[in-house]
Amino acid sequence: MLQLRFLQASLSPKPHLTFPLISSSGSLRISQTKLRSQMGSYTTSSQQPSKLLFRQLFEKESATYTYLLADASHPEKLALLVDPVDKTVDRDLALVKDLGLKLIYAINTHVHADHVTGTGLIKTKVPGVKSIISKASDAKADLVVEPGDKICFGDLFLEVRATPGHTLGCVTYVTGDGPSQPQPRMAFTGDALLIRGCGRTDFQGGSSQQLYKSVHSQIFTLPKDTLVYPAHDYKGFTVSTVGEEMLFNARLTKDEEAFKNIMANLNLSYPKMMDVAVPANMVCGLQEVESKPC
Amino acid sequence: MLQLRFLQASLSPKPHLTFPLISSSGSLRISQTKLRSQMGSYTTSSQQPSKLLFRQLFEKESATYTYLLADASHPEKLALLVDPVDKTVDRDLALVKDLGLKLIYAINTHVHADHVTGTGLIKTKVPGVKSIISKASDAKADLVVEPGDKICFGDLFLEVRATPGHTLGCVTYVTGDGPSQPQPRMAFTGDALLIRGCGRTDFQGGSSQQLYKSVHSQIFTLPKDTLVYPAHDYKGFTVSTVGEEMLFNARLTKDEEAFKNIMANLNLSYPKMMDVAVPANMVCGLQEVESKPC
Repeated sequence: MLQLRFLQASLSPKPHLTFPLISSSGSLRISQTKLRSQMGSYTTSSQQPSKLLFRQLFEKESATYTYLLADASHPEKLALLVDPVDKTVDRDLALVKDLGLKLIYAINTHVHADHVTGTGLIKTKVPGVKSIISKASDAKADLVVEPGDKICFGDLFLEVRATPGHTLGCVTYVTGDGPSQPQPRMAFTGDALLIRGCGRTDFQGGSSQQLYKSVHSQIFTLPKDTLVYPAHDYKGFTVSTVGEEMLFNARLTKDEEAFKNIMANLNLSYPKMMDVAVPANMVCGLQEVESKPC
Repeated sequence: MLQLRFLQASLSPKPHLTFPLISSSGSLRISQTKLRSQMGSYTTSSQQPSKLLFRQLFEKESATYTYLLADASHPEKLALLVDPVDKTVDRDLALVKDLGLKLIYAINTHVHADHVTGTGLIKTKVPGVKSIISKASDAKADLVVEPGDKICFGDLFLEVRATPGHTLGCVTYVTGDGPSQPQPRMAFTGDALLIRGCGRTDFQGGSSQQLYKSVHSQIFTLPKDTLVYPAHDYKGFTVSTVGEEMLFNARLTKDEEAFKNIMANLNLSYPKMMDVAVPANMVCGLQEVESKPC
């Protein structure tokens, strides 16, 4: 069921004034069709498909990928960052500036345990940026999203899919479906699906059973050419595809029992950053309320 | 002047039998038009533009990017690797296998000083793969290329551009121009042009004056949307564009005198791998002659 949650500040026909402000209370639900007809030029401002500007960025200490996406066809080049890291915020914002983008969202796939999110720091440096995380994560953010929500930047959008299992609140953000959206589609899978692997399931409400179901029902049902962009890679891979992971993922090609057995016997050490990162990430993005940077 | 150097083993119309064998002696020059007409179906086997399969891979110790390119539309999915690293050969070859590709070339942008090339090891593991490097490098390889040469894989090709300055033999490989080639174009710049920087010029026949001229005449003359894929990045960037580097490269946006001054005052330490890597890389790719792996 494709629906949007919008707390609409303005219904101006100017695309750059129609940022979706996603209500944390879910107080207003408007169907996509209705909303678009209300917005006038919002989705019809261009006859050409919108042009995605895309950059993959790497933070080596935690082996985290941050993704920059922007609608390069939009007059203001509206942009968002997925999974920014505190240590590389200056790099990311310098790139945003060089490319002439207007950053509107800093979003997380989940409450990370291995690094501090950059969303808090970004908000201190770029006023107006809104932090986003899933409602299921129970973390604080300017905006919280639920499955089926769309996060719009210009005429492009990310669709929210619930993929719990690594943590209870993990989501996968997938670029939109349709002729005006990027082809092939792109899935930002966080730690739910890694290239040839997956995130651990032994803390933060993790569940191997749930992760197995999440990946098979929410990611492996996407078109096979969908590009898989994970939150981490430890071997130097940068991208995969849904089709490739369905064939070659070392864990998720197994049956559910074998998968659960693998995940129960990883014997991983306690994440060294966990006690710092998780509390910080549970409130980050709202540090202007807390009146201190993360 | 677009010309090809081919030592043609067979002029069979089957595309997969028409691998260009590039003569190191330049004994046979055939114009592109003439060659294509001789080859029958070579460039006309598909009405659709060839589909590039592309992967960027990272080796963290030397911060080296290896690139995998293949013609996914070709019946045999002919592929090549640019700047493979010895330590990540098994990863790269596993990916080649997973993707069902036929690796035909392992090519280097230059004689690296910071890591041992993977070409030698690849040749021991995948018989038939040919190593390629520039003639100007004076290194041994199965095939050596000169400016203007084309390295074909299926219906796609890389054009060779001389970009000396980091070393005397540095080249940039650029994807082909034309409707059947990938758009935007992609430049594999080695150490000549890095993202917001460039390679050092103080050894291996390096020259800041030459590097300045190389980048401005051979790379900055490409279309501005050409994607820049360097051999290294130390800050977590993965890609840039020609237009972006023309505006924001910290060194190459300066005038020539300022650039030379910057390069003369970097005060960099001696590369720790240099005494191992350079001798190995000068002969690598021919280790079947040397009868030992690199």
